This record gives sequence, C-alpha cells and structure tokens, in this order.
Amino acid sequence: MTESDTQRALSEVLGSIAPPDEAARRAALEHQLRLTKPPGSLGRLEVLGAQLAAISGRMPPAVPERPAVAVFAGDHGVVASGVTPWPQEVTAQMVANFCAGGAAVNVLARRVGASMMVVDVGVAGVLPSDPMLCNDKVRPGTDDLALGPAMSREEARLAVLVGVRAACSLVDGGADLLVGGDMGIGNTTPSAAIIAAITGRSAPEVTGRGTGIDDDMLALKTSVVAAAVDRLPAGTDAIGVLAELGGLEIAALCGFYLGAASRRVPVVVDGVIALAGALVAVALAPAAHGFLVAGHRSTEPAAALALDHLGLRAVLDLELRLGEGSGAVLAVPIVQAAAAILAEMATFGSAGVTELDD
Amino acid sequence: MTESDTQRALSEVLGSIAPPDEAARRAALEHQLRLTKPPGSLGRLEVLGAQLAAISGRMPPAVPERPAVAVFAGDHGVVASGVTPWPQEVTAQMVANFCAGGAAVNVLARRVGASMMVVDVGVAGVLPSDPMLCNDKVRPGTDDLALGPAMSREEARLAVLVGVRAACSLVDGGADLLVGGDMGIGNTTPSAAIIAAITGRSAPEVTGRGTGIDDDMLALKTSVVAAAVDRLPAGTDAIGVLAELGGLEIAALCGFYLGAASRRVPVVVDGVIALAGALVAVALAPAAHGFLVAGHRSTEPAAALALDHLGLRAVLDLELRLGEGSGAVLAVPIVQAAAAILAEMATFGSAGVTELDD
Repeated sequence: MTESDTQRALSEVLGSIAPPDEAARRAALEHQLRLTKPPGSLGRLEVLGAQLAAISGRMPPAVPERPAVAVFAGDHGVVASGVTPWPQEVTAQMVANFCAGGAAVNVLARRVGASMMVVDVGVAGVLPSDPMLCNDKVRPGTDDLALGPAMSREEARLAVLVGVRAACSLVDGGADLLVGGDMGIGNTTPSAAIIAAITGRSAPEVTGRGTGIDDDMLALKTSVVAAAVDRLPAGTDAIGVLAELGGLEIAALCGFYLGAASRRVPVVVDGVIALAGALVAVALAPAAHGFLVAGHRSTEPAAALALDHLGLRAVLDLELRLGEGSGAVLAVPIVQAAAAILAEMATFGSAGVTELDD
Repeated sequence: MTESDTQRALSEVLGSIAPPDEAARRAALEHQLRLTKPPGSLGRLEVLGAQLAAISGRMPPAVPERPAVAVFAGDHGVVASGVTPWPQEVTAQMVANFCAGGAAVNVLARRVGASMMVVDVGVAGVLPSDPMLCNDKVRPGTDDLALGPAMSREEARLAVLVGVRAACSLVDGGADLLVGGDMGIGNTTPSAAIIAAITGRSAPEVTGRGTGIDDDMLALKTSVVAAAVDRLPAGTDAIGVLAELGGLEIAALCGFYLGAASRRVPVVVDGVIALAGALVAVALAPAAHGFLVAGHRSTEPAAALALDHLGLRAVLDLELRLGEGSGAVLAVPIVQAAAAILAEMATFGSAGVTELDD
C-alpha cells in the first residue's frame, strides 16, 4: 500500500464507527426493572447487560458464545536502554509458548471456550510458522523511544490496520466477543508514555514496575518516559503519539478496538498495554468507546489512570499484571452472564412474584 | 432426634474439620514461581490456586468441574416489625421461581454448569413439591427477633445440621465446588445482627438498606438490630447467637460451610446473609476458615465488615446486593481458572523461556 492508501483505509474504518444504540440500552435498563429481583440489585451486571444491548442494538442481546482472543506481539527498541531485566528474546519465546498452548492466556482461553490467535505485528527476528500464528509483521521491533521516534507515522497506521484486520477476520469467522492481548518485552514503557501523553499525567504517576523491577531501574524507566513524552510537540495527533512512543502491538490493539467497534461487537480490554491502545482508539474515533468493556484493573499505576480517563470501571480487580489478555479473558464469563440475565430471567409478571409499588 | 442426639451430631461434624494442607499450599506457591510469567503477576489468582491445593491436599489441585449450588430458604418473624417493604409471601414465590429456573441464580448457575437445589429449611407455609426442592423444614419461619429469641437453641442446631446434610449429599453426588445461597424476605436484619454480635460492630455500622428501603425504615431496622444484639448475654456462644438472632437459612448456610469443610471441598461464600452464616461457622470450627472462598463483596455495609473480620478478600466486587448465591456463582469460573493455571501452564523449563536470575 502507498501512504495515501493507508491513510484512506484508516479513514474508512474510522468513518464506519457509529456509537451504540441508546434505545436498546434504555430498553434493557427498563427490562431489568421487571426482572424478579430488587431494582439495581445486580449492580454492574445490569450496566454491562445494557451495554451489550446497546452494542448489538437488540434487547435482549444474544449471549456471546463465541469469544475470540487475539494476542499481538511486538518488540521494543527501548529494551536496549535498560528499562526491563527481561531479554528481548523472551517475546519470541513466549509466542512459541502461546502456540504450544502453555501460557496463562492459553489456559484461561480454554476455560472460557475462546479461540486463540497470535499476531506477529513486530517481533524481532523470524518466527517459525504455526497454525495459531498470523504473520502480519510491520517491522521487526520498534526503534528505541529513548533516542527518537519508535516508528514512522506510516508504520503506526500500518500496525493499526493489522489490528483492524484481525478483529474483522475474527468477526467474519463468527466471533461475537473479542479479547485483545499483548506480548512484548519492554512494553510497559511505551504504554506508560502513551498514557501520559493522552491523559496529561506525569511520568512518575504513570510509570510502574511492570514485570517487577528495582528502584534504580524504575528511576531510569521514569526518566525515559518523561523525556519521550516531553519530545512530543504540542497538539500531536493520536497517530503521532503512537509513532513517537510506539509499540507496534499497542498500535495493533488500538486497531483491534476500532475493528470491533466498526463491526459492532463488544471487545474486552486487558491491562495497561491494552489500555494505552484503547486510549489511542478513542482519540481516533470517540464512538468506539461504547464498544469497550474494561476487563480488569491492573496493578500498574497507569492502568487506573487510563481507566479513569476513559470513564471505564473494570469488571475484575484481581491484582493481575501479566498482560497477554489474561485479565480480559477472565472477565468473559461475567460479560456472558450479563447478557444471559437479560435473556433468561423471569419477570415479576411471568413468575407470579409480588412486585413492590413505587 | 433428641436434643442430645443433635448436640452429638453437631459435635461430630465440628470434630471432623481439620485445617487445609499447608504443605500442598507451599508446593503450589513454589510451582507458581516456575510458571511462564513474572513472579506474582497473576495476583490473587495465585493465592486462590494455592488455597485450592491446600484444600485438596494435592498439587496441582484438580480443576473443580462439578460445581453445585444450594439455596436455603426461610422466613423471618421480624418482617412483622416492618423492616422490609416486601411481603413475606415473596419467599415462597421466589422458591417457586427457583424451581421454574427463572431467578438470577438459576441463570448464573446454568452459565457455569452448576447443579442447583433449593432447601426449604424454614419457609412459612407448605411448598408444592418439586424435583429441585428439598423439604428439610425445621419450623415455618422464625419468631420476631425484635420481640425475643428467633428460635430455640435446639432449632438452631437442627437448622445447622440441615446445611451439613445438604453439603454432604452434594459432595456424595460428585460435587467438587459448593456454592451456598439464601432466600428469605427480611433476612438482612438477622444477618446484620449476627455480624454485629460476632464482630463487635455497632448497629448503625452493620445495618444497610438491603433490597432498598427508605430512611425511616432504615432507622427502624437499625433500632431493631441494636435492641436484639443488646439482649445477648455477655459470652453467648455461637449457637446462642444463631438462636437469639435467627435465620433458619443463615443457620443452614453455617452448616453448609461446616459440611464442606468436613468433606474438604472448597465452598464459595456469597453476600451478607451468607457471610453471617460463615462467621458462625468459623466461630464453631475455626479450621473451617481455610475452605471458604469469598465470592463477592456485597454493597451491604455488614458484608465488608464480615469479610474483614474473617480476613477474606472477595473475588468479585460488582456492587451486587441480591443474595440467592448470585455473586458466589459468578466467581466460580475464576476459582476454576485458578486451579487450571496450576494444572496446565508451562514452566520456564518446559517451554524453553529464559528465566530471570534472582
């Protein structure tokens, strides 16, 4: 594709995203009042059910029985600046672990009956082919964001389109609930930087210990985040933020959320890396917001800040900080339950249960 | 049974409860360190997995694939004192709704593949028989705890034994993960009183709006709780607390937790009513504590106080306040996932993923 092709393709996706159906949401909220339970007593399950109605435009919404997980993998030049103790080779090793079914997200996806694919959007080096692996590499890792832009604007757009394609192909294959995950050694650094850039929070507020780093490494990581964010010219657009601060898999996750929204399918957002992608997606297409379900609240500090900025409350808070989509997959049964409540519960009238007068 | 038979039967159950296996818990925690993830990155899922190992005495623990829900139903004389706007008849109507499969807990139990039984331990009036319904009524509702003891000590013991029997029969039938629920119009009042009596909290701290009551009714409910708790002689034992403050279904839930512990099967605790039962269970048999999993954190104020007193953290916090076991059932897939992680995830060695040195 030429650069103008890429711009046009992305514009088409963004233009295709319309907000959820508020009439269906209202119908769901009204129906909840007739179900055999005290009003509001199912708490956030009721809010979630109404969101699923709004997304599908149907009341009751169909229970999403075909969840699909896509894990986007990419490498990060910033690893050379010493922001993580893990060697870069672990990204490719973990992709192999995903393909062999041995990672946490595999176990959790099997538990919830979700299909699983891995998308190589930017792993350094060549990966052996595998039925689970989709080779859609934009480039073999980003440049070091401590030294300059992580990638070009065109590469950022291409990586976003990788995510859009993954979402659309899963929906075309029958998936009715999407879950995005990430794998990329070093990727809490670009995620923190993107979250700082979009929310306006400071580097010390957004920078966390990721997979577990000591105080010295945290200080270095914080300074890398601060310098990279400071480099952004005022008014940098969302693609510019992605290009400068990077993360090929973060860009792809952004595209995954856009693709889900364009196909009007709910998508469960994972932890801090996924949230960085979601912030960019909503910056590009505000209407995509209504299709996002926050799966869990990661312990990474930037995750809570991103959730607040998005106005999302996470379904789960289990002190996870793994990534891979693990927390989002764990939320899938609760999303399904929220839809099932609307579809299957009896009303006061149908069950012959005495209703309170108002 | 004579009174001495009942006392003997209860003593036998209490004597059969031994704490979980700490060696298996340690083995699980050590194994988690070898799994392909940063240490601790699965957060509370790791703690939960280790608890399941300790309960079963096996590492890895078997994934509990046969969850079973028992909902205990009873009526409350205190309804006559005006602590709830719902008429007492709703208890029996909701039992019929459970039997017809239309209540929230039915929908959620179906989602997680759990069997479901309803135990009439104290509903006022005679219920039509149903395959799902177990008639084990101790008496048709309690006396009004605003005026005097809710039941006799012997009735409290009998109701506890109803719960023990339910747990044991479910385990005998193959259940490997138990979930207890409640139905009883007015039952947040005895629950609040029991939680106040055991935790030492005041009536205003423990008393909440239950299914949704106005300020005047809340003030009345609080005064009823305060007066009932004040009536307890210093040093009243756990059976005495149950007898004075009541709840036949609360006593049965207490027994259900004791039965689960005696059979060394994990049991998921629901909201405020269930937690009142759990507090009594742990007062009767401290070793039962290790078999309890707190399923969710209800919005009822006494629920958080009971969780704190028990030193339990809830798996879910979805602002539920329905009861029926609904929140506990929602936690089942996460309990299963915690076991599956231990059973199925690859280790650094088996997956060929580079491990960090310490």
